[in-house]
Amino acid sequence: MNSSIIALLHGPDRPGIVAKVAGWIHRKGGNVLHADQHLDLQENVFFQRIEWEPLEKSDRKEESAEFENFVLHELGMNIRIALSDDRPKIALMVSKADHCFHDLVLRVKAGEWNAEFIGVISNHHDLCKTCETYGLPFRHLPVSAETKSEDEAKQLGWLRKHGAELVILARYMQILSPRFLEQVGCPVINIHHSFLPSFAGAKPYHQAHKRGVKLIGATAHYVTKDLDEGPIIEQDVTRVSHRHGPKDLIEKGRDLEKLVLSTAVRRHLQNRVLDYQNKTVVFD
Amino acid sequence: MNSSIIALLHGPDRPGIVAKVAGWIHRKGGNVLHADQHLDLQENVFFQRIEWEPLEKSDRKEESAEFENFVLHELGMNIRIALSDDRPKIALMVSKADHCFHDLVLRVKAGEWNAEFIGVISNHHDLCKTCETYGLPFRHLPVSAETKSEDEAKQLGWLRKHGAELVILARYMQILSPRFLEQVGCPVINIHHSFLPSFAGAKPYHQAHKRGVKLIGATAHYVTKDLDEGPIIEQDVTRVSHRHGPKDLIEKGRDLEKLVLSTAVRRHLQNRVLDYQNKTVVFD
Amino acid sequence: MNSSIIALLHGPDRPGIVAKVAGWIHRKGGNVLHADQHLDLQENVFFQRIEWEPLEKSDRKEESAEFENFVLHELGMNIRIALSDDRPKIALMVSKADHCFHDLVLRVKAGEWNAEFIGVISNHHDLCKTCETYGLPFRHLPVSAETKSEDEAKQLGWLRKHGAELVILARYMQILSPRFLEQVGCPVINIHHSFLPSFAGAKPYHQAHKRGVKLIGATAHYVTKDLDEGPIIEQDVTRVSHRHGPKDLIEKGRDLEKLVLSTAVRRHLQNRVLDYQNKTVVFD
Amino acid sequence: MNSSIIALLHGPDRPGIVAKVAGWIHRKGGNVLHADQHLDLQENVFFQRIEWEPLEKSDRKEESAEFENFVLHELGMNIRIALSDDRPKIALMVSKADHCFHDLVLRVKAGEWNAEFIGVISNHHDLCKTCETYGLPFRHLPVSAETKSEDEAKQLGWLRKHGAELVILARYMQILSPRFLEQVGCPVINIHHSFLPSFAGAKPYHQAHKRGVKLIGATAHYVTKDLDEGPIIEQDVTRVSHRHGPKDLIEKGRDLEKLVLSTAVRRHLQNRVLDYQNKTVVFD
Repeated sequence: MNSSIIALLHGPDRPGIVAKVAGWIHRKGGNVLHADQHLDLQENVFFQRIEWEPLEKSDRKEESAEFENFVLHELGMNIRIALSDDRPKIALMVSKADHCFHDLVLRVKAGEWNAEFIGVISNHHDLCKTCETYGLPFRHLPVSAETKSEDEAKQLGWLRKHGAELVILARYMQILSPRFLEQVGCPVINIHHSFLPSFAGAKPYHQAHKRGVKLIGATAHYVTKDLDEGPIIEQDVTRVSHRHGPKDLIEKGRDLEKLVLSTAVRRHLQNRVLDYQNKTVVFD
Repeated sequence: MNSSIIALLHGPDRPGIVAKVAGWIHRKGGNVLHADQHLDLQENVFFQRIEWEPLEKSDRKEESAEFENFVLHELGMNIRIALSDDRPKIALMVSKADHCFHDLVLRVKAGEWNAEFIGVISNHHDLCKTCETYGLPFRHLPVSAETKSEDEAKQLGWLRKHGAELVILARYMQILSPRFLEQVGCPVINIHHSFLPSFAGAKPYHQAHKRGVKLIGATAHYVTKDLDEGPIIEQDVTRVSHRHGPKDLIEKGRDLEKLVLSTAVRRHLQNRVLDYQNKTVVFD
Repeated sequence: MNSSIIALLHGPDRPGIVAKVAGWIHRKGGNVLHADQHLDLQENVFFQRIEWEPLEKSDRKEESAEFENFVLHELGMNIRIALSDDRPKIALMVSKADHCFHDLVLRVKAGEWNAEFIGVISNHHDLCKTCETYGLPFRHLPVSAETKSEDEAKQLGWLRKHGAELVILARYMQILSPRFLEQVGCPVINIHHSFLPSFAGAKPYHQAHKRGVKLIGATAHYVTKDLDEGPIIEQDVTRVSHRHGPKDLIEKGRDLEKLVLSTAVRRHLQNRVLDYQNKTVVFD
Repeated sequence: MNSSIIALLHGPDRPGIVAKVAGWIHRKGGNVLHADQHLDLQENVFFQRIEWEPLEKSDRKEESAEFENFVLHELGMNIRIALSDDRPKIALMVSKADHCFHDLVLRVKAGEWNAEFIGVISNHHDLCKTCETYGLPFRHLPVSAETKSEDEAKQLGWLRKHGAELVILARYMQILSPRFLEQVGCPVINIHHSFLPSFAGAKPYHQAHKRGVKLIGATAHYVTKDLDEGPIIEQDVTRVSHRHGPKDLIEKGRDLEKLVLSTAVRRHLQNRVLDYQNKTVVFD
């Protein structure tokens, strides 16, 4: 099958948007494969994810650009557009923990996702060898208190040089500065090892154990300058009991973190996620 | 808010359906509130649930009829259409177990659903008094081996007289004859107390206990003449262990049955379910 | 089967506790049906739930008292002891919402639990009629700002007069004063409609919607003088999406609240819950 | 901490077993860390998992042997005994799919389990290279229709030579012959990609898709000569919808298979699983 076009739109609701979008595609000879929409009645905002197969002879890039133009200028809405066979370039940022790292790399290797890892940035040396085995460029930058500003500049340089279109913090144990986030120029997804907003900040499993909760969670979210406060993409939980000490929670949590982070990344890569007012619309 | 119109369509996929449907509504001045679609690429069948708010001055019944006509004759597709404030008439069929019965009645009383219970048919007397308390007509028909054919005729008569638009088997422990199902003239939803297709037939919790499964389930499905083989609307499971005997499974199962049946009924009442080739499409 | 004896012990761990407890029961001719234990290695505290069937001729009350004496004075541990056929007296406190109320009352009526409802206290009149139908005494006390202290005294008098052994706040929308909690003389279980510690306090579903979480939760806990901070007995969650407004969360939450509260109450009634350092040990 | 001793007992229930076991350990100066028991009242069979820390100076091997002797000859019960720091030797059998394979190997590498992989047997060459990277011996045996008997003999020889104490079928797509199972001399754990007993046999995801189930499952079980009928150790499910074709189910199922198989293996390695009458008792 040839590649299809996927568009994510949002903007003020007005009568006829659905008809106009579908009409445009129909006139081009395209066949709609999926369409899902959401209307936020409180805010009067319309959201849509629409995927269509253009005519075989159509130039996908050109048709995308034309549609983008149509949405921006004739409908006055925001749009993000992609082709189903795009392979976005992903950079990983890691520290010492390697469970999410392996999980993500193996998924790409197994062909689960249309994506390409461009390399790994770390503030530790631990995963250097493994990156070699996987054939992934590894960039070590210590990001100590004294070098933070300088090292972040190097990180940004590296990401730009390699053309990163998505950054995944796969248990990266450093806080990114507001300056970094302003300049990175692509979305950054983080996995936090708690069911946010509970237990934001450091050592969430210890906090959870202390409070005596009966479920622990993990949360994948887009990173914003407010720590652990960005738009949530995915969350899940698993049951624990009085028998589990902080060490058990950490171990049980690892499987949860892998699942939640990979689910969030998959949805992002499939262009299913729109963030809006610090929340997400996920077309599933 | 005035009532909206909800349509469920399905039929052979062809380019332009989405545009034609959306265009029709737009020309009438309607505003699309929700639209969800599914394309079965294997079978080339298109499914859509679309809900729109007509112009305030529009006669909903008339607009519905016109749209139905348009879909049937211009698009050549099947359609089911309803208004958001329709209150379908539901009949319950029960035996002795009362957990699903109470659960459903209390939901309607609490206003969770737009629906009306017209009464209860039972092959036992146990729930007669409780029906009185709830103000529900109660019809007892023993349906013994000798009276089955005759009693089913009476059941059908009763359902027709009261205008049943949905029949719910809320743990009704009798098999409906093919003749009954042909003549009932409205959907029948059953709750089976296992994760189908495992443990179809009698005493599923005893079967589950014997096999030593680690999760038990419940399944809500449309009833067809093949016992426990109808299109599945909803399923769920709960964890059990070696500590649970058949009696414990029965007790744990009660909560599951209530949840699964009520979820299936809610979706049916919200016109979210299409059945097709012995499966369902559930627009959630 | 005759009734069995259930004991819940906890205290500083020492070698030989398990042997001494089992030895005592064996010498009496009892047969251990269940035994479960937990050792908090950090705090060096030992917890045990043990259930045994005494000799048929044994006087259960007497044997319980002897065992209690043995544990307190020879083992130097805390103990709570009960018979399997005890029927604790439960009082419900409610406001307007009735879903947990119906759920609990119907479970007792169905014989799911060995317990007896002695009546209902409410700060509203809404459930008065329904209590009559159920044959439950109903006590209305408005608990306005001016009458709080006086009305709480009346509540306490009523609970004492009827011999309450457990108080369940089934969506009771008033904060109990520290004085009430000091004097009530029996455990109080509350259902909070969020996954604590997230969204403590008022309007948790609105808070959850605002934050854009992907799961909503409910938490049953023993009430302490710190609002929503007491030992958690049970929690669970259910999935939500961008499609769900606050009203949908409230509706979805109702099923969750019923399940979580009833699970917590069941465990409490089966003498499976020990609270310790503001957490619970639940022998499941 | 020094290693502890873990014993799994089962046999006909008799008064005093708990006391005798605990008494024996106490006399030896041991301190019970965990004890959990189950009484099958229907079959009158008693099950126990007990873990204790012997005196520091005690020879663990000797104390284990003495206890084994005591249980066999004085209590007349079956026993399996292990030390907490035992590192059982595990052999993997795989075909082409590699998700469970990576998952298991990475868990052992990460130190999640006390165990050692002795190597990989496969009927395909696909994972040969990866095994090299992981430093795992790889043995290819095609097991074609003509060579099955001979190749199974070679498999058995290889397993014996390397001292396998557990065999894991990590999506091994061959049926082991009854003769193999009789001679293998250690437990064999398999992952089946359905919620057994539903969809036993070939292509379970296709079967599930055809039936239109709303949840798919995975089941880890001990292998017996009856295909997909052995004692179930662990099961879990995940939600699917009409949008998921067989290919999607296969992809979603991979995460489920990894989780379910690794949970079952973890419990087996922690000596928490007793199989009995084609079911398991899992002390969790």
